[in-house]
Amino acid sequence: MLQKLTRPTLLLDAEKCRNNIRRMQQKAAAQKVIFRPHFKTHQSAAIAQWYAQGGTNKITVSSVSMARYFASHGWNDILVAFPLNLAEMHRFTRLAAEIRLSVVVENIEAVRALATASIRTTGVYLKIDAGYHRTGVPVHDHALVQQLIHAIDKQPSLRFRGFVVHNGHTYHTSHPQQVIDIHRHSVEALNKLRQAVSAQSDEMLISVGDTPSMSLVEDFKGVDEIRPGNFVFYDVMQQQIGACSYHDIAVALACPVVAIHKQRNEITLYGGAIHLSKESINNADGTPFYGKIVSLTGNGWSSPWPDSYVKALSQEHGIVRTTPEMISQISIGDFIGILPIHSCLTTHLMRDMITTAGQAITTMQSSK
Amino acid sequence: MLQKLTRPTLLLDAEKCRNNIRRMQQKAAAQKVIFRPHFKTHQSAAIAQWYAQGGTNKITVSSVSMARYFASHGWNDILVAFPLNLAEMHRFTRLAAEIRLSVVVENIEAVRALATASIRTTGVYLKIDAGYHRTGVPVHDHALVQQLIHAIDKQPSLRFRGFVVHNGHTYHTSHPQQVIDIHRHSVEALNKLRQAVSAQSDEMLISVGDTPSMSLVEDFKGVDEIRPGNFVFYDVMQQQIGACSYHDIAVALACPVVAIHKQRNEITLYGGAIHLSKESINNADGTPFYGKIVSLTGNGWSSPWPDSYVKALSQEHGIVRTTPEMISQISIGDFIGILPIHSCLTTHLMRDMITTAGQAITTMQSSK
Repeated sequence: MLQKLTRPTLLLDAEKCRNNIRRMQQKAAAQKVIFRPHFKTHQSAAIAQWYAQGGTNKITVSSVSMARYFASHGWNDILVAFPLNLAEMHRFTRLAAEIRLSVVVENIEAVRALATASIRTTGVYLKIDAGYHRTGVPVHDHALVQQLIHAIDKQPSLRFRGFVVHNGHTYHTSHPQQVIDIHRHSVEALNKLRQAVSAQSDEMLISVGDTPSMSLVEDFKGVDEIRPGNFVFYDVMQQQIGACSYHDIAVALACPVVAIHKQRNEITLYGGAIHLSKESINNADGTPFYGKIVSLTGNGWSSPWPDSYVKALSQEHGIVRTTPEMISQISIGDFIGILPIHSCLTTHLMRDMITTAGQAITTMQSSK
Repeated sequence: MLQKLTRPTLLLDAEKCRNNIRRMQQKAAAQKVIFRPHFKTHQSAAIAQWYAQGGTNKITVSSVSMARYFASHGWNDILVAFPLNLAEMHRFTRLAAEIRLSVVVENIEAVRALATASIRTTGVYLKIDAGYHRTGVPVHDHALVQQLIHAIDKQPSLRFRGFVVHNGHTYHTSHPQQVIDIHRHSVEALNKLRQAVSAQSDEMLISVGDTPSMSLVEDFKGVDEIRPGNFVFYDVMQQQIGACSYHDIAVALACPVVAIHKQRNEITLYGGAIHLSKESINNADGTPFYGKIVSLTGNGWSSPWPDSYVKALSQEHGIVRTTPEMISQISIGDFIGILPIHSCLTTHLMRDMITTAGQAITTMQSSK
């Protein structure tokens, strides 16, 4: 594998990835919740097949373009989990004629747009804000939720399916118990909401999504559907939250070493913001870091180097801060690996992957 | 223009862009320095033509792939201003057979790799670190510089051209005078270096690059070549440094409004980290922001909204914090514009642009 590398390349450990998928599928089955994984992390029809082999047949995506891509690869039960973009209504309408489509709304304007679009039967979820405050109807605003459900119920083409929530504030926690608490409070509030409102349809699913909760919570009581995405690869952010171990991280960016600066224990890599994204986490001293460093091996990569991290990124440069011991083992022209902070963004930027066994994996972003 | 938009779209004001190009061309001509603009910001053969119309015939790029793209569009004097990646030597060798190619080295390993590559005559610049400490030979290490020049001079295929420096620390200044001081100290140290070393070639250029210096410095004494890139579009970061005004910023990301949260003066846009990148600047209170907000007009966009900015980005969501006055003018389904913090990363992510006159502009990242 290493012999073939010439540029920054996203490596995928297929075994780790398939284990991550299998573990979450088994958890969903054991907890008797619908498994509707988010595919925005990998964006790949090839990786989607690994889910299909474990029985997954419902998916979540974040755009109508992504829904179109996976529909063209045979997926026919797709939730577009992003507040409806009215300017793309014609694309939603075309897609609804072909597959079992569900969309997300959070305001009356979106319901009205669906009502006038002559769309074929479409599932509609309400986006609920259970504390993250990014977007959605506040979970305590039962009156607004009831009003939106009534507006949906009035349309023969629309079928109310339930509530989607994304507790993104689990990403800002410092202890696994905080993740579990956020999940529990959110599920309690959602169940109160469900009891308080009425709908024509019997179905009123509570659908939750973030990878930290889905990884750390063991009891999915009060939940009907889960939509985690990032767990397929995990990343350093998830490791820091406690949602995975370093060993579970399934992608690493292989980068050529182009300069070594021993006097300050730094290595310059060809691998920058256009490969990794500028997502960062703060070190204990408050300075940001942009990835952890691993050695590449014949069939994968090592544990993270001690006391080593990407300290800065510009467009194509990555600057690694490391130790005299590690730097003494590195030469110009070597390749080393970076475990990304946020694998979703890195995968989106890289567009293509290669497995540690040398198999090319394309995504919907690939130029081919 | 607005009628055609359906998704996050990068708008280009061609007039502002061409003015930015013309102004820098005129400055270089007036100061009698070689103009070798960096094309990594736009990555577009169409925009490159606007430079060519003003007489530009030498360019800088950041990868051999980018050099290949512009060579295929007729550019034949190209500097790849990134420390030589030994794993791509075969691609450099092929390119050197076709165009007047220059590369950048900063260590003896790279010189040796060039020496054994049977490469056709290739220009070689030394990467000098004049205080940014990203990479390069320290400007005061005259002995190492002399050793590298001798090694280059020994190879008949290699022609030493001079010194490249990128004073990226100008990006971390808080007053234009600091930019000017960084530039002046760096040019003084480079001229001392030039006097201290000897080379076979008469040519020993001092080539400098960052957009803040090239925009703010009026006297290019001691400089032979300038390589700014970002000025073609500018962005909010350059405005904050003082290198441009908001009026000079030539790109804006048009985004659909998908939700409005009046109780907290926030607008949710379809437009996130996969469109803008996660580059941020800190507000006065230390919290980050990810872009400034403008209204789209029939033929461009307004000045930035007062007290309004992108306060958070996730993969596809952008959260705008604004005022009751501005929010009262916005409806679900409208498009508003974001002036990017870092136009290079935004352009790389978006791949394609559309001018405010409706003309499609492709880049080397385009899928077509």
